Amino acid sequence: MNIIFKNRQSKIFSEMSQRKIDALLVSDPLSIFYFTGIHVNPMERLFALYFEKGETVLFANTLFCIKNAECSVVLYSDGINTADFLTAHILKQGTLGIDGMWPARFLIPLMKKNPAVNFVCGSECVDSLRGCKDAQEISLMKTAAAIADDCLQKAFNFIHDGVTEKEVASYIDSLFAKAGAEPSFETIVSFGKNAAAPHHVPDGTKPSRGDVVLIDLGCKKNGYCSDMTRTSFFLTAPKEVAQIHDIVRRANEYAKSIIKPGVALKDIDSAARNLIEEAGYGKNFTHRLGHFCGMADHEAGDVSQSSTLTAREGMIFSIEPGIYIEGKAGIRIEDLVLVTKDGCESLNKLDSHWHILG
Amino acid sequence: MNIIFKNRQSKIFSEMSQRKIDALLVSDPLSIFYFTGIHVNPMERLFALYFEKGETVLFANTLFCIKNAECSVVLYSDGINTADFLTAHILKQGTLGIDGMWPARFLIPLMKKNPAVNFVCGSECVDSLRGCKDAQEISLMKTAAAIADDCLQKAFNFIHDGVTEKEVASYIDSLFAKAGAEPSFETIVSFGKNAAAPHHVPDGTKPSRGDVVLIDLGCKKNGYCSDMTRTSFFLTAPKEVAQIHDIVRRANEYAKSIIKPGVALKDIDSAARNLIEEAGYGKNFTHRLGHFCGMADHEAGDVSQSSTLTAREGMIFSIEPGIYIEGKAGIRIEDLVLVTKDGCESLNKLDSHWHILG
Repeated sequence: MNIIFKNRQSKIFSEMSQRKIDALLVSDPLSIFYFTGIHVNPMERLFALYFEKGETVLFANTLFCIKNAECSVVLYSDGINTADFLTAHILKQGTLGIDGMWPARFLIPLMKKNPAVNFVCGSECVDSLRGCKDAQEISLMKTAAAIADDCLQKAFNFIHDGVTEKEVASYIDSLFAKAGAEPSFETIVSFGKNAAAPHHVPDGTKPSRGDVVLIDLGCKKNGYCSDMTRTSFFLTAPKEVAQIHDIVRRANEYAKSIIKPGVALKDIDSAARNLIEEAGYGKNFTHRLGHFCGMADHEAGDVSQSSTLTAREGMIFSIEPGIYIEGKAGIRIEDLVLVTKDGCESLNKLDSHWHILG
Repeated sequence: MNIIFKNRQSKIFSEMSQRKIDALLVSDPLSIFYFTGIHVNPMERLFALYFEKGETVLFANTLFCIKNAECSVVLYSDGINTADFLTAHILKQGTLGIDGMWPARFLIPLMKKNPAVNFVCGSECVDSLRGCKDAQEISLMKTAAAIADDCLQKAFNFIHDGVTEKEVASYIDSLFAKAGAEPSFETIVSFGKNAAAPHHVPDGTKPSRGDVVLIDLGCKKNGYCSDMTRTSFFLTAPKEVAQIHDIVRRANEYAKSIIKPGVALKDIDSAARNLIEEAGYGKNFTHRLGHFCGMADHEAGDVSQSSTLTAREGMIFSIEPGIYIEGKAGIRIEDLVLVTKDGCESLNKLDSHWHILG
C-alpha cells in the first residue's frame, strides 16, 4: 500500500476517537482522493469512504471502474436503494460521523432506516487532516501560487484602453492553460464600481481613467490550488481610493505579522478588522478575512470571528481584507499564507502595492 | 413580477400540498434560478429559497448582492450560526421538505435545533415542475441539441490517423465556444477498448484500424443543456462489433417508439434492456437507460428499473443504451427526447448508424 495513503488512513481513527465518533462516512470526492488516490466524479451517484474499527471501505458504483484501491471496495449497481445498501454495511448503533457535504437525498432516508444510530457532522476529522499540508502538498501549492503570481502580473501588463473585463479574464485563463493549469474558480476582473461587489462576474465593462482594476485569480495545477487578489489603478490613482488601498494593504500585512502556531484564527481576523475599523471603514469590510485552500479553492475552515481553530504548522489559508464602496470602487489584497514553525510564509510573492496600469 | 417566475412559484404550493409538505427549503442554485431568475454561485455559503403558506423567502448572504428579487429576501452576514438564523425564520412544527442536494453540514445542526419538525426529502415538488419543460425551455433545449448535433458531426469529420482522444475533446470544446456555448459535462472521446468504460476520460490514445470511436458530448447554451452520444469506426468496422452497434441502435429506436404520456419510465428501460438481453448482451448493458436533462446535464429523475415516474408531456430525458465489452470496445447511442402529446420527438437529428471515419 502506498505509504502516503496508509498514513492518512491511519490518522483518521485518532481524529475520530478524539471526537467520540465510532464510524465515519466521507463523501467529498477530493477527500476520498486524499485517502485513496482514487479520483472519481460520481455526479449524482453514491460514492463514499467508510471508516470503522481500523477498517476502510469504499462504496462505489460498478460504473466508476475502480481499480487498485488502497482499501476494501463494495460495489453496487444503478437501480438499488442506496439507504438499504448502506444500512447493510454500516454500524447498527453508536455515533456515525457524516461528511458535511453529503446530500440530504442520501442522508434523510439513511437516518429513517437507522433510528438507533446517532448521526453527527463528522467532517472535522477529515478537515483537521486536510487543513495541515504535508511537504509534498506544500510544494504543489507553491507551484500553483507561483503560476498565479506570474499570470496576475501579466494580466496587469495586458490592461489597456478599450479592453473589457471579460477579455482580461479570458486572457488569464489562456495563461493558465499555457502553464498546464486550469482556473481554480471563476476568474474575477472588476473595473471601477464593479469592484464594489466582491464576487463580480467579468462583463463587457471597459476601464475609465482612475478606475480600480481588481483581479482575483487562482489556478489548479497537479491537483492543488492557488488564490490571490491584487488591486491597481487605470492611468491614475484618485487620492481617496489610493488611501483606502493603503489601509487594505496594511491590514493584510498586519494580519500576516501576527500569524504563528497557537494564535486563534479569529484573532487574526480581528487584527485586520480592527485596523480597518479604526480607519473608519469597518462597515465596508463585508466578509471574513480568509478561508482554507488546498485541493479545493475553498476548503473547510475560515479565518473569521466564528472560527474556533488555532493556527497549526502546515495550515494554508488566505488573508484577504477588502474595503468596498458602493457605486465607486472595491479594494482587496489576498495572499495564501503557510503557517510555519514560528510565523508564516506568504506563498504569493507579487508586490501588493498599487501600480498605475494602461 | 415576471409572469414566468410568478407562475412557477404559485405551482410549487400545490406540489407541496399533494405531498403533505407544510414548508419547503430549496437550495439547488439552478432551482432558485428557476423560481426567481436570480443566479448565484454560493460556494460553501448558505443560499436557500423557502416556501410556506403562499409566501416565498430567499435566504442569502449580503455578499451575493441580490437585486430585484421576485420574492422577500432575508440577508445574513458571514460569521453567523446558520442553524440559529434559519430556525428564527422557518416553521416551528410540521413537515419541512428539504432539497435533496442540501448538505449535511446545514441539515444536521438544523435538525438538532428543531426536534418538533419532521424533516423529509422534498425535492420531488421541484423535480416535478422542472421535469416538464415549458415552450421557452423546449426551444432553448432544441437550440443546444442542434449545436451538439453539428459539433458531433464535425468531430467525426476531424478524426484522422495520429489524433489523440484529448485533441478531439479539445476540438469539440472549441467548437462549443465558437457557438457561444460551453460543455455541459466533461466531453468523452474514447477509442477502441477505452470505450468499454462508459465514463472514460480522454487521454493520449490514438485510434487504430477497426477501433470504435465513441463521442459523448453536450453543451450548455443560454442556461440549457444538450447531451448525446454517437459511436462509429476508424477506417474499418469489424463485423462482430458492427453487429453489436446494430443491437444498440435498435434498442435506442425501440425504446423511443414506445414513449408517450402515461408510459412508465421503467417500462421504457425494460424495452431497451429486454432487446439487448435477448441479443445475449444483457450483462454488458451496465447502466440505466436514461436521465433527465435541462438546466443541468443530469437532473433529478431517471429512466431505469427503479423509476416510479410515468412519462408526461414536456418531459425531456436521454435514451442511451450501451453495450460494453471489457478490453475490446464500447457502443452507446444517446438522444435527448421530448415527450409530446402522443409520442416523443428526438431533439437530436444526427444519423445514429455507424460510419467509417478517418
